Amino acid sequence: MQLTIGNLLKDAEIRHPDREIVYGKERYSYSKFGERARRIASGLLDKVGVHEGDVVAVLDWDSMRYMEAYFAVPMAGAVLHTVNIRYPPEVLYYTMAHAEDKYVIVRDEFLPMLEKYAEMFEFVKGWIICSDSDKEVKTSLRPFFNYNDLVKSEQSALPDVTEDRMATLFYTSGTTGMPKGVTFTHKQIVLHAMSLQMAGAMAPLNNSERDVVMPLVPMFHVHSWGLPYNSLFAGMKYVLPGRYDFPKLLETIDREKVTFTASVPSILYMLLSAPNIAEHAAALKGLKMLIGGSALPRGLATKAHSLGMVVVGAYGLSETCPALTISVYNERAMSLPEGRRQECLLTAGIPFPFVQVRIVDSNFRDVPADGKTAGEVIARAPWCTSGYFKDPEKTDELWARGWLHTGDIGVRDELGYFQIVDREKDAVKSGGEFIPSLLLESAISECPGVGEVAVIGVEDPKWGERPYAVMTRSGDVTDSQVVEHLKKYVVTGRIQEWWIPDGFEFVESIPKTSTGKADKKELRGRVRSKVQGVA
Amino acid sequence: MQLTIGNLLKDAEIRHPDREIVYGKERYSYSKFGERARRIASGLLDKVGVHEGDVVAVLDWDSMRYMEAYFAVPMAGAVLHTVNIRYPPEVLYYTMAHAEDKYVIVRDEFLPMLEKYAEMFEFVKGWIICSDSDKEVKTSLRPFFNYNDLVKSEQSALPDVTEDRMATLFYTSGTTGMPKGVTFTHKQIVLHAMSLQMAGAMAPLNNSERDVVMPLVPMFHVHSWGLPYNSLFAGMKYVLPGRYDFPKLLETIDREKVTFTASVPSILYMLLSAPNIAEHAAALKGLKMLIGGSALPRGLATKAHSLGMVVVGAYGLSETCPALTISVYNERAMSLPEGRRQECLLTAGIPFPFVQVRIVDSNFRDVPADGKTAGEVIARAPWCTSGYFKDPEKTDELWARGWLHTGDIGVRDELGYFQIVDREKDAVKSGGEFIPSLLLESAISECPGVGEVAVIGVEDPKWGERPYAVMTRSGDVTDSQVVEHLKKYVVTGRIQEWWIPDGFEFVESIPKTSTGKADKKELRGRVRSKVQGVA
Repeated sequence: MQLTIGNLLKDAEIRHPDREIVYGKERYSYSKFGERARRIASGLLDKVGVHEGDVVAVLDWDSMRYMEAYFAVPMAGAVLHTVNIRYPPEVLYYTMAHAEDKYVIVRDEFLPMLEKYAEMFEFVKGWIICSDSDKEVKTSLRPFFNYNDLVKSEQSALPDVTEDRMATLFYTSGTTGMPKGVTFTHKQIVLHAMSLQMAGAMAPLNNSERDVVMPLVPMFHVHSWGLPYNSLFAGMKYVLPGRYDFPKLLETIDREKVTFTASVPSILYMLLSAPNIAEHAAALKGLKMLIGGSALPRGLATKAHSLGMVVVGAYGLSETCPALTISVYNERAMSLPEGRRQECLLTAGIPFPFVQVRIVDSNFRDVPADGKTAGEVIARAPWCTSGYFKDPEKTDELWARGWLHTGDIGVRDELGYFQIVDREKDAVKSGGEFIPSLLLESAISECPGVGEVAVIGVEDPKWGERPYAVMTRSGDVTDSQVVEHLKKYVVTGRIQEWWIPDGFEFVESIPKTSTGKADKKELRGRVRSKVQGVA
Repeated sequence: MQLTIGNLLKDAEIRHPDREIVYGKERYSYSKFGERARRIASGLLDKVGVHEGDVVAVLDWDSMRYMEAYFAVPMAGAVLHTVNIRYPPEVLYYTMAHAEDKYVIVRDEFLPMLEKYAEMFEFVKGWIICSDSDKEVKTSLRPFFNYNDLVKSEQSALPDVTEDRMATLFYTSGTTGMPKGVTFTHKQIVLHAMSLQMAGAMAPLNNSERDVVMPLVPMFHVHSWGLPYNSLFAGMKYVLPGRYDFPKLLETIDREKVTFTASVPSILYMLLSAPNIAEHAAALKGLKMLIGGSALPRGLATKAHSLGMVVVGAYGLSETCPALTISVYNERAMSLPEGRRQECLLTAGIPFPFVQVRIVDSNFRDVPADGKTAGEVIARAPWCTSGYFKDPEKTDELWARGWLHTGDIGVRDELGYFQIVDREKDAVKSGGEFIPSLLLESAISECPGVGEVAVIGVEDPKWGERPYAVMTRSGDVTDSQVVEHLKKYVVTGRIQEWWIPDGFEFVESIPKTSTGKADKKELRGRVRSKVQGVA
């Protein structure tokens, strides 16, 4: 039997037939959902004319349609391209052309943008229009199909997909240069789902089929960290959040009794800043949240803890499907006093089952696991992408010496927990030594009055580079108060004195990449031109 | 990264370095155990001269040596043949010759038997002698190696084994004809381990890395149901029971704080009949036990429950690695009142993750899931054997129409739980209808005074066959008391009146197969000659 997405869904139906998938007022049992997915796959093949191996793109918010496409497209033997709708139009077009999207499932609200550039999409052989409403949607795009007609298709025999076939394709966030495509096979996605479930069952998550999950990781982003596949396999009730509207998300968490979610820190920040937070605070008590994308600032963690949330860190990349590490407790952590144990949750964690992670120096030798010595993080896992789509050169760089190079700088402590201290390309190197900007950001974030923070390196004639902090305000605070705050951490040894930034700047908002991370490339550009302008 | 046994062990070491493996006074951390396994694999290659693909046999009780061989042999690229030491010598020889065992790891106490037939083992190129004691072992077998020398080997580079390589080979219990060999790849064993862990995490087992496991499934039997692989992957403390000595097993459960075990019903029966049971009863409270091999008789379940044990049924075959179904709770069971829910535990259960099971009639159509309509159980799973070793004809029978034919008769209820009601070849067919002998045995086992019971079919001129019950006594009981007992169940509808056996017989002990199941073939022979002798 093959490890395919079709067999994974079948398995979910067999073991958890009555479990529900919810999107607003729409709710289907796994059984019903499975039937719908098979009808849509049949419709793609029989009505639309999709062939095995064709790339089928989706442009949508996190809807029931998207969830169905996650299964139906690969089950039809086609490749699911989850288009990042946060890209600027030219980048979005670049990825769709690069992927050679043959068919496109598109939400009605994105039609105007596509219609405007219709003649450029000559590679698209069919548009499939979906909508949250039942009424007929009009478009000038040709040829087009109605998604709702696909759902009514007869269930035909689906192709026997082998597990090593490509199932998904998406593009990296592209903070440097144009986005790169990464691909995953059916087998990789299934193994990733199994590993997620095994790690999720560990304390303090203790996830099980009794949980209700609503990921707040957009479905166009690293297939929502694999949670749609993993959650059905695990038998969890699944809630689709639609477009992220924070007050409404809090209502949904409350109404559907969500017990487990996942997001990047900035989404958690916005959720906890929603105007109706007080009204729904009780629903957050005990809510488990997986935090990835970037490290959780300590200040934000404290806020989440004060509401009774259980926040667990995780680490991975688009290239790794993404699961690499997760901060659940290993037996060494379990034997620690509770306060110290909880510190583990703020790290990137320990490897997921079947992941190998190393931290190496420039000679490819493992650095000591002392919590201090930094090096490049390299990894292996059965679900790492085999390479960048149509880019053998970058693939060779990614897989130099048979290990996947994350481009991140990390440390590992005696307990086995990893911590990411910098992106290689964002690293601040001062006087020949790395300043771990993520640790510094975390320290700054705890200063009362500071909201979000991003530390970047600016050129310095003496030290090569010096750190510079860009912050938003959540209250009254001045540069010198931040410096005083950091000096206290110098005394306790948490940071070193020479890490304290030379420059500080308060801004209205931190620019973000399409995946919600601080856009440090953009920030460096801004700050450099400002510093040059001043000089 | 490949799904190999070597990578599975590496993963256990990375995530649970300090967890222990225990055998008597010997105890190693996973780290230390991993190092030993790599040294032994190196020794097999460098000192003994094992080549990739060679078959390496093991004859031992459940010792630390056996546990090491489970990993070291496949890590060396060789095939682990777990020889069933309960076979009569000629059958044991047949399997070793059929497997073409090139090297044999053998416990000192089995040397005399092998030395006696030394000249027949011309296919063996080397004997590796192991022992629980440190003193030099003498043997007339040539050439021979000392296991302890292998442990001292330098760690050399082990071959890059691919996941589709054969890892293990063993022989079925052979209740009909000569045993048949079944083989499993690295990938199959790893996926099986992952599925076991996911199912084991479900209620009421709730297994986690905090458990202490001591399987009472011999390591020569279906690789101890895969528990050595699964448990290390899950990070459980692992206790090796050695040769099964029931009073000592109870002491070990108590001393090592065992929380999870697994066995066939007859082993549970013997454990609960041990003379020191009262002394260690407290250690059994809360002990979780997986029961497989044959269905758990209700009488035995009641006894286990009265001691506070949590007994969970499972079902599988040598051919299926063995996991097919396990009686953990699905959401339908969770919504039942507790008494009714616990009934589920006495069934064969629901499919393990990634297993597909069907019950079909003679036209290969699924029978209704009504808990009554019986049919043949067929299955698919990523870890089903690809076929019988060197037996393409029997392989074709096993895999007719692309499904594995279990040869068992089963039913499925509305909740999704399977129940095995008979072996196809042990089925009693009376008046054209099946009498589910396993259900009947379970009902008889609850009669006060009855110990073990086996129901077989005997020829009948009118009905074709009629059931005949062979029982042991655990107290005073007569045939007519058994009949009266069964009539009560006729009233409640649990059994049908025409199922009540025509013949009863009390014996000293029920003959067993080499895997501890009632040997019905043997019983049919005995009873037939007796019935004929009487006629």
